Amino acid sequence: MFFHEPELQYEVTVENPDPHFAKLLQQAIGGQEGEMRVALQYMFQAWALPEEYEAFRNLLMETATEELGHIEMLASAVTKNLRGSPRQMDEDVEETAATAAAMTGQNPRQFLSAGQSAMPVDSNGVPFTGGYVAASGNLAGDLYANVMAEATGRTLATRLYEYTDDPGMKDMLSYLIARDTMHQNQWLEAIEALDDPVPVPASFPQEEENQEFNYTFMSTRREQQPDPGAPWTQGDSPDSKGEFSYLPEQPGDGEVVAPEPDPNTYNDPNESNDPTQGQ
Amino acid sequence: MFFHEPELQYEVTVENPDPHFAKLLQQAIGGQEGEMRVALQYMFQAWALPEEYEAFRNLLMETATEELGHIEMLASAVTKNLRGSPRQMDEDVEETAATAAAMTGQNPRQFLSAGQSAMPVDSNGVPFTGGYVAASGNLAGDLYANVMAEATGRTLATRLYEYTDDPGMKDMLSYLIARDTMHQNQWLEAIEALDDPVPVPASFPQEEENQEFNYTFMSTRREQQPDPGAPWTQGDSPDSKGEFSYLPEQPGDGEVVAPEPDPNTYNDPNESNDPTQGQ
Amino acid sequence: MFFHEPELQYEVTVENPDPHFAKLLQQAIGGQEGEMRVALQYMFQAWALPEEYEAFRNLLMETATEELGHIEMLASAVTKNLRGSPRQMDEDVEETAATAAAMTGQNPRQFLSAGQSAMPVDSNGVPFTGGYVAASGNLAGDLYANVMAEATGRTLATRLYEYTDDPGMKDMLSYLIARDTMHQNQWLEAIEALDDPVPVPASFPQEEENQEFNYTFMSTRREQQPDPGAPWTQGDSPDSKGEFSYLPEQPGDGEVVAPEPDPNTYNDPNESNDPTQGQ
Amino acid sequence: MFFHEPELQYEVTVENPDPHFAKLLQQAIGGQEGEMRVALQYMFQAWALPEEYEAFRNLLMETATEELGHIEMLASAVTKNLRGSPRQMDEDVEETAATAAAMTGQNPRQFLSAGQSAMPVDSNGVPFTGGYVAASGNLAGDLYANVMAEATGRTLATRLYEYTDDPGMKDMLSYLIARDTMHQNQWLEAIEALDDPVPVPASFPQEEENQEFNYTFMSTRREQQPDPGAPWTQGDSPDSKGEFSYLPEQPGDGEVVAPEPDPNTYNDPNESNDPTQGQ
Amino acid sequence: MFFHEPELQYEVTVENPDPHFAKLLQQAIGGQEGEMRVALQYMFQAWALPEEYEAFRNLLMETATEELGHIEMLASAVTKNLRGSPRQMDEDVEETAATAAAMTGQNPRQFLSAGQSAMPVDSNGVPFTGGYVAASGNLAGDLYANVMAEATGRTLATRLYEYTDDPGMKDMLSYLIARDTMHQNQWLEAIEALDDPVPVPASFPQEEENQEFNYTFMSTRREQQPDPGAPWTQGDSPDSKGEFSYLPEQPGDGEVVAPEPDPNTYNDPNESNDPTQGQ
Amino acid sequence: MFFHEPELQYEVTVENPDPHFAKLLQQAIGGQEGEMRVALQYMFQAWALPEEYEAFRNLLMETATEELGHIEMLASAVTKNLRGSPRQMDEDVEETAATAAAMTGQNPRQFLSAGQSAMPVDSNGVPFTGGYVAASGNLAGDLYANVMAEATGRTLATRLYEYTDDPGMKDMLSYLIARDTMHQNQWLEAIEALDDPVPVPASFPQEEENQEFNYTFMSTRREQQPDPGAPWTQGDSPDSKGEFSYLPEQPGDGEVVAPEPDPNTYNDPNESNDPTQGQ
Repeated sequence: MFFHEPELQYEVTVENPDPHFAKLLQQAIGGQEGEMRVALQYMFQAWALPEEYEAFRNLLMETATEELGHIEMLASAVTKNLRGSPRQMDEDVEETAATAAAMTGQNPRQFLSAGQSAMPVDSNGVPFTGGYVAASGNLAGDLYANVMAEATGRTLATRLYEYTDDPGMKDMLSYLIARDTMHQNQWLEAIEALDDPVPVPASFPQEEENQEFNYTFMSTRREQQPDPGAPWTQGDSPDSKGEFSYLPEQPGDGEVVAPEPDPNTYNDPNESNDPTQGQ
Repeated sequence: MFFHEPELQYEVTVENPDPHFAKLLQQAIGGQEGEMRVALQYMFQAWALPEEYEAFRNLLMETATEELGHIEMLASAVTKNLRGSPRQMDEDVEETAATAAAMTGQNPRQFLSAGQSAMPVDSNGVPFTGGYVAASGNLAGDLYANVMAEATGRTLATRLYEYTDDPGMKDMLSYLIARDTMHQNQWLEAIEALDDPVPVPASFPQEEENQEFNYTFMSTRREQQPDPGAPWTQGDSPDSKGEFSYLPEQPGDGEVVAPEPDPNTYNDPNESNDPTQGQ
Repeated sequence: MFFHEPELQYEVTVENPDPHFAKLLQQAIGGQEGEMRVALQYMFQAWALPEEYEAFRNLLMETATEELGHIEMLASAVTKNLRGSPRQMDEDVEETAATAAAMTGQNPRQFLSAGQSAMPVDSNGVPFTGGYVAASGNLAGDLYANVMAEATGRTLATRLYEYTDDPGMKDMLSYLIARDTMHQNQWLEAIEALDDPVPVPASFPQEEENQEFNYTFMSTRREQQPDPGAPWTQGDSPDSKGEFSYLPEQPGDGEVVAPEPDPNTYNDPNESNDPTQGQ
Repeated sequence: MFFHEPELQYEVTVENPDPHFAKLLQQAIGGQEGEMRVALQYMFQAWALPEEYEAFRNLLMETATEELGHIEMLASAVTKNLRGSPRQMDEDVEETAATAAAMTGQNPRQFLSAGQSAMPVDSNGVPFTGGYVAASGNLAGDLYANVMAEATGRTLATRLYEYTDDPGMKDMLSYLIARDTMHQNQWLEAIEALDDPVPVPASFPQEEENQEFNYTFMSTRREQQPDPGAPWTQGDSPDSKGEFSYLPEQPGDGEVVAPEPDPNTYNDPNESNDPTQGQ
Repeated sequence: MFFHEPELQYEVTVENPDPHFAKLLQQAIGGQEGEMRVALQYMFQAWALPEEYEAFRNLLMETATEELGHIEMLASAVTKNLRGSPRQMDEDVEETAATAAAMTGQNPRQFLSAGQSAMPVDSNGVPFTGGYVAASGNLAGDLYANVMAEATGRTLATRLYEYTDDPGMKDMLSYLIARDTMHQNQWLEAIEALDDPVPVPASFPQEEENQEFNYTFMSTRREQQPDPGAPWTQGDSPDSKGEFSYLPEQPGDGEVVAPEPDPNTYNDPNESNDPTQGQ
Repeated sequence: MFFHEPELQYEVTVENPDPHFAKLLQQAIGGQEGEMRVALQYMFQAWALPEEYEAFRNLLMETATEELGHIEMLASAVTKNLRGSPRQMDEDVEETAATAAAMTGQNPRQFLSAGQSAMPVDSNGVPFTGGYVAASGNLAGDLYANVMAEATGRTLATRLYEYTDDPGMKDMLSYLIARDTMHQNQWLEAIEALDDPVPVPASFPQEEENQEFNYTFMSTRREQQPDPGAPWTQGDSPDSKGEFSYLPEQPGDGEVVAPEPDPNTYNDPNESNDPTQGQ
């Protein structure tokens, strides 16, 4: 059950509204690396956990709730950058064409569809999709997904930080970057709190996997190459359950020849003989 | 530059063709956790790396190339499960309705669109999308994305393993699970080969992030809670750059009040007074 | 800023877990008529409103927050229907094929991708998309969008109600249907609180629209028809700003002939003469 | 059954071709608020209606057919804005880079994919999706969806009207805005022609919905608030079937704790104890 | 400008309503090979053609208009298969669970979202997308796209024909298959009416393409293979502008090494030395 | 089974890096007409072919493999255009806003999401989708799909060729255009190697299709028109199996009246009488 207060989690100010930056900020709202993704991802992961994972469930739900507040902060930032700007829609008649030109370089839907507001889309105007959300039911896999989400999210935020000089925007991003630092660390810490989770899913009986190829680096180079002596071709594996080795060649066995389809598929193009044989 | 041989990377046989299993296998081809995702993800990551990352670039491209062969194996498995089955499309006239019923529970497009063949879609028939691919340009973030991809991929493969008794299918999946074990380990090893990569991106000057909230667990509970004493609320952080602390309350500052939009947006619903005040 | 308590908004129980119903419930989570849509829609609408709309902004945000709790209830309902069911994945070896068959008729990704959990997708497994969210910046248009969202949402809930006998599920749906009744009514009431909002956007100077066709029903029948005497072809219009009339024929003026494209488009298929003239 | 004449429904002229405006116009063709949406929406709604709804079916189909003609007008407008413009692709060698730069701010696919033509996409180049279409089978819900579609459609058209000075484009948009005025009014009138349609679906026996929460505004504020005395917290409801009341607190009952999943999901991350307890 | 008559283009009857077949029919409405695709594709192609292509423009628009009528026929067929069926939603209380199970194997959204009606989606419930539409501006390319669309469309219709015994459905499909025969032939005939259209776009000055590799079959086999003597490795090319030859090896030149990115991308994972060299 | 060498198929150089051109090039990677589409299309087609089609299967797989190398070339071209450019992200503080403005006209995700790298998206940033891939199981239909894919692909490449003066880019595109010439020709040649493949699917017994409408051009004009005497209204059809004729009128038969839905759909908007009759 959720609650809301009409207060931002952290102050959002914009000194020099910039509609271009408003377009870029959309990536942090509805993009692959954005806050809608993490908010939903952490929720769905939490809702899958049974009783004994209470500490993890709380960790996930509390963080999901925080991320909802980040969407709100970013939506506020977008609106403030779009409205009140000297570069906003110009009412001067002879500049209508120039205004239209400017708007196509910005996100036109922020104007046309949303009346100078934030939207659940990314910086190219592509709508957010549930396909970004990773929630596998397996806590270890989910925590790695969360490390990755915060890593790409923090990378996005640092890049946005470089594209603005606005003190308010820099301050907001400095806060969001800090939260991503915390979240990366908390997910890594949570992985450490698990007992021997790799290879995920660790509960699968590993003796049922093929024992010949499970710790072998398999080269796919056209010409066979000698073992490069990389950390992933020799030495102990990070899961401490095997030793890396090097195989210069894929095993290879059997062609891809499809069985005959049912005649009712009408796959047959009528009749065709081997065109490489004299006909 | 790629090359191909008309030989499978590993043998694929099906003793008892099962069109239902053919539907499930699609998840491993075109699904969020599937092989199309990893093949493309590793390629695009590799193509972003400059000169000094040659060892990582080779690691990524060789693995991407291997994954292309996994798509091929799974496509072969799908076709073999769809064709030659006693449950395939029945030509017997009086059973047409039953056949149609059976097919709707399967993936109808494997029949209607593809003539009993594999497709670039997932187990619900949703097309593969480039939105699944994570390639951030930052190698550390990408490697975490790869650990996650192999973790969810291996989890998927183990679940598929439980849904078949076919010895050929079990053998193929046992091979794919083994490869996922290797790949999880190699990406973890590659992360270890990086020097101090967390928090990603480590090249961002961390002193520019907000120093008050970067190692603090921030509770979003409605009622303030005491510090749970979890590993993520106290002690050293995994990146060794901070110490966890606990904050029972979000900072909070300022309302979300959007600035006035340009009148040309016609956002104004005409006129509205505060409906909670006597009008 | 959001808060959360680890308590459901309303009790969710399942007496007879039914994985089929778990598939149907997904429509109410991530579908076009689902709770993710309304939660996000109300938020983005609220965030676009300037100062003088405080009462509406609060109305929208409070309702958005409630809808987040509905997603949580439904996710709980899905998990409870998927797990602990006699029809769940069967470990009995000789029934593996039957289990696979059963699962393809259900949502296979609830098992394969989510380990028997809820997902941000609809009842066909199609991911939620931000394209479902309507937030135009114009409050009147948005309120009509909300009436429509609650109308289709309530219709969905009543249909789900018919597909279950489970007392717990019926009780939960009875609650959700009641909330949709309230929400439909509150949005209609909010429209009434606006002053003369139709035609949306009412702030556009209506004298600039074409005055000949703005209250005329224009027949597109092939054969001209007499005025049917419908309420929309005669009498006063609901916005009280015009009178309906009937036009048996579209105005019609000018052909669709595209100008010559730039030669650099290479649109020219080489050369083509009019094939209906002797060549 | 449809017919066509090679004549536009209303004249479309462009005096000063503007490729930027051609990008903006795409929103009215293939966007969420565009003509493809309404044309298809009205058709699918009509096709769902049984015999006794003949007057509504005709209303829907005639309007759908009109909207097809609007797509045609807009496609013509796009082509005329893209071709013959002084800003079109420049053949002068030294300006190729500048032309490429100009085109990226426009919709590059109008050039690259369509040879300076209209496309079934929105103003960001996102393809039209059937997910925009609302057709619930319930006429009342559908009519509200249509009011909303025409409200957002008219809002879009008025915004486009502000972005052009071209007399031809202004005239075309003045016509489209007028038609949206008519269509908003006709759908509202059609709702009035229904007998007591709210809450949609009105045919559901309302006594089966929860009677405690169906006319109650439920506050989700963190801190309990007094009744704001808004029209939606007191007084009669618009459907005349209840009286609004105010509840300062969500009911709340039971935690989200997922049941144990089947072991074959391999959800178990191996073993994890409560990390908040000394281990 | 379009017109409509409330009459089907060809009679649609269903003797034995079958909700499963209703799911399959959706592929012919909103699927990749369906009628929405061709109707829109032919329209957008026609709207791109300048004056001298009047005969082709009429051909395209008349066929597009016919396809609109096919959508209508198929929507009628879907509704008739969903409603009035003995397998439709059963009101008998104790069979609710069985009905829910049946519906998940069908398309649940035809019930839940559309009240037993047709939808703009495919046979897996995936919404129609504008991404299926091919309209390049180049008439020759478009006509090949149309041959392809009718070829895959006719293949789909023949497969549907095999899945039903219903005399009405067989008759409708026999009609649609016949129309696809005509349309395939008319597009091929239209290609023949063009003067030397291959290679598309023929208006590009072919001397500007690389002259070494434009008629050469380039083998990508790992091991060099002798010329297979296939029609595409020797003899005249179909465009009569070259002679096929065989090259056993890709040219190959230069590595994929990305230039150094801007430091502000924070691509640097901090510091990494070559892990294959002793560190 | 695939192999890779760290060498490009053909040299890729960029003299004057241009981030705008990098955006346009994305269309050739992840767009509807791009290389990801053809690479995957040819693979899935090949994997569907049974034993006797070995020559075609090899043709398809060898070409698919070549196309993978084209994606690699284009990804390299994108990176080289994005990095090292004078127009790249500017570190000069006072120009941050201008840099942000420039980037919004470019593809912001190439910077924000990918750190100046190529992505699996099109020139508008829309992700690649498996919905672009056509693989019907019927070889003849597939080969026509391939002609069309290479026709639109070559058209795209010629348009890109016009937007750059860079000698390296022109050379790369000249190579890709040449390969498209070859591929168009090889697919046309492969169609010729089939025996009588039209109408696709030729294996369907043509006597089962409606014999009245299978070679008739059916006019959909509102007013009946005389036979235009076009090649597609008279004379032999290209498949040599019929003779074209002309029908000035669609057959027409029966209205679209949906059967009564199940009451449990709650389709009934409550009660509605015919609003055109006095009530």
